[in-house]
Amino acid sequence: MNAEILAVGSELLLGQILNTNAQYLSKQLAELGIDVYVHTVVGDNEKRLTESLELAANRADLVILTGGLGPTKDDLTKETAATFCGRSLVHDEDALHSIESYFEKRNRQMTPNNRKQALVIEGSTVLKNHTGMAPGMYVESEKCKLVLMPGPPRELQPMFELELKPLLLDGSGTAITSRVLRYFGIGESQLETDLEDLIDAQTNPTIAPLAGNGEVKLRLTVKHSDEAEAERLLDETEAAIQKRVGEFFYGYGEIGLMEQLSIQLKEAKLTLSAAESFTGGLFTSGLTSYKGASSIFVGGISAYSSDVKEDILQVSNETIKQSGVVSESCANEMASSVQKMFKSNIGVSFTGVAGPDPQEGKEPGTVFIGISGPDSNVTVHPLQLSGSRQAIRERAVKYCCFYLLNELKRWHATT
Amino acid sequence: MNAEILAVGSELLLGQILNTNAQYLSKQLAELGIDVYVHTVVGDNEKRLTESLELAANRADLVILTGGLGPTKDDLTKETAATFCGRSLVHDEDALHSIESYFEKRNRQMTPNNRKQALVIEGSTVLKNHTGMAPGMYVESEKCKLVLMPGPPRELQPMFELELKPLLLDGSGTAITSRVLRYFGIGESQLETDLEDLIDAQTNPTIAPLAGNGEVKLRLTVKHSDEAEAERLLDETEAAIQKRVGEFFYGYGEIGLMEQLSIQLKEAKLTLSAAESFTGGLFTSGLTSYKGASSIFVGGISAYSSDVKEDILQVSNETIKQSGVVSESCANEMASSVQKMFKSNIGVSFTGVAGPDPQEGKEPGTVFIGISGPDSNVTVHPLQLSGSRQAIRERAVKYCCFYLLNELKRWHATT
Repeated sequence: MNAEILAVGSELLLGQILNTNAQYLSKQLAELGIDVYVHTVVGDNEKRLTESLELAANRADLVILTGGLGPTKDDLTKETAATFCGRSLVHDEDALHSIESYFEKRNRQMTPNNRKQALVIEGSTVLKNHTGMAPGMYVESEKCKLVLMPGPPRELQPMFELELKPLLLDGSGTAITSRVLRYFGIGESQLETDLEDLIDAQTNPTIAPLAGNGEVKLRLTVKHSDEAEAERLLDETEAAIQKRVGEFFYGYGEIGLMEQLSIQLKEAKLTLSAAESFTGGLFTSGLTSYKGASSIFVGGISAYSSDVKEDILQVSNETIKQSGVVSESCANEMASSVQKMFKSNIGVSFTGVAGPDPQEGKEPGTVFIGISGPDSNVTVHPLQLSGSRQAIRERAVKYCCFYLLNELKRWHATT
Repeated sequence: MNAEILAVGSELLLGQILNTNAQYLSKQLAELGIDVYVHTVVGDNEKRLTESLELAANRADLVILTGGLGPTKDDLTKETAATFCGRSLVHDEDALHSIESYFEKRNRQMTPNNRKQALVIEGSTVLKNHTGMAPGMYVESEKCKLVLMPGPPRELQPMFELELKPLLLDGSGTAITSRVLRYFGIGESQLETDLEDLIDAQTNPTIAPLAGNGEVKLRLTVKHSDEAEAERLLDETEAAIQKRVGEFFYGYGEIGLMEQLSIQLKEAKLTLSAAESFTGGLFTSGLTSYKGASSIFVGGISAYSSDVKEDILQVSNETIKQSGVVSESCANEMASSVQKMFKSNIGVSFTGVAGPDPQEGKEPGTVFIGISGPDSNVTVHPLQLSGSRQAIRERAVKYCCFYLLNELKRWHATT
């Protein structure tokens, strides 16, 4: 089967919004083994939409239309698609009901044009909108299979996942299950090289590396007719992968390094404080972005100037004179000191050169991360990072999360 | 004139990358008064690319092709477009020279397939690539005006700005000048309502509101044949706008609130320290993201728990007992205390409820921002914000920057 994605909306042609739906749907369809040959965007214009529909239906088995299902007079996707299929529009009672309750819940008056949103193409399978009002549709017409979905990604994505995907898989007897493995401290190309033969040989599950935000993910995707069999296949493939790159693994699914750390600290019932120099609060602001942060985070010092390191964090003048503030011994004292000052189980410290200029004769990217554990023993991790000022700061914070996750495992094992 | 944008690249159809070029070009063309009717994406496939070219050339005056100009065998945009126009490919000496020097500068060996990148369509105007190797082309063929540009946005955008835009404007005798005004503390719809008659009546300059990241921008765009006249027209329109919404204005161009604050503090030669509760270091990590932060930022305390506020920041026990930590008096004491502790010219404090749960019976979004000025007088700004936990934290930080920018003006005026 092959598909085309046809987005409708003048705001796309004016460059006011990005067509993220085309990317999302393309990724999803690729996972289902459906080839996408063309993306098109047209405005809210009946003539041009009809022409594009005609072209797409001639070329593809499946045409997915996105956008133009709203209540205003600009929204003409449904009307145009119905005419194209030679069908009429009928009121869908379920859709009307959910639109009415949408307004009731929000104590707002439903305007008459909102009734228009409950109109669907005659004979279509209605795709429920779990996060908005306009229902989607799946129509098997003579010309092609036609899908209509709303434009806002927060409505389209759950509709695809919960309504359209099962429909597209239906009858094939196959389902799809994915597992995402997350890694840090290894580049995408290194990971790919280490697993090259596995990636090439593996067909079910498939193994797809994905990079982003300085982390690498592997998505294992298995087609199956039985959930238990799927899990067995995923376990087997994961075991083969971890044997080679397990030391860089830190978690599953859509939970990034910082959130994983926040979860693990909560589970371990440990509190943390941090002394940050060149990261200036980047670590603590990340950690406090998750709800319930008060159970794990006590507080921190952003020690930007040397005076602050000496006066407030009590780093010894000798250390600063002999080794400088960008040094292993300074990171060590900072971690100990902040832990004592804030009476937390763990003390963390960052000192380094973010750049662009060198400091104390040390190049940008020179970084020391200190971790003082519940037993007050301090470990300092030296790093040499590269990239822009912001990239160095962000990577240092990620490394700290990764080190802490490893330490948490170790502490857990020894208690 | 009307245009179509035709992107070439299988990675777009697989959903691996987003078609940001279509958005960028649409915005730019809209500013030039060129209507865009269709966006299309096709893969690296000669047959489908030729068909799409045929369709686009039939419908539009100008067809802009993006992507597929690289050195590998996948890249076939140039060859296909040349065949479509009935022209051959010839070596462009300038392009070849700049490719060679690109490799020389990087001390890398130029591979033979890179010579392919210097091939251009016969009779085309070459568009210089200022940030990469593959040159662009502008061809006036019998079928339509055709433009070819490289896919990477960092190559395409300067090429549009420096090479294609002047070409598209050429002969018309007009140039385009823009001015961006930045506002905070007023919503996009309110700004639009306040300026509605101006926006509707104004044709040169045009006034376009743009929202993003909780800030609103107004872009004034003037078509002109004389730079001095353009400045006069922009000044006139800006004056009419500022008369109505000037109290929310904070700066020009692409410099956001935080960077503006960092620039203004440097100019005023003032240092700052911060005590952050629910923002947990978000303000200080933002301020230290710009180079040279050490000249304005001394340090800060992330005071997440009440104990830290009392023990380290010396907020009086009486204040905490009587008003709670989310209070005007606590914000006041925090700002004073951090200023003294870090010996900075300015002390800033944040206390509030980020949510999702209430705290001390106060709803999420209840926020107090304290500013202790160079004269040690403290002003506390109470706020009631809405949105997610992260939105509340980010908005509070932006408000603080806006208040500080206003205070800086006031301090400057009184000294």
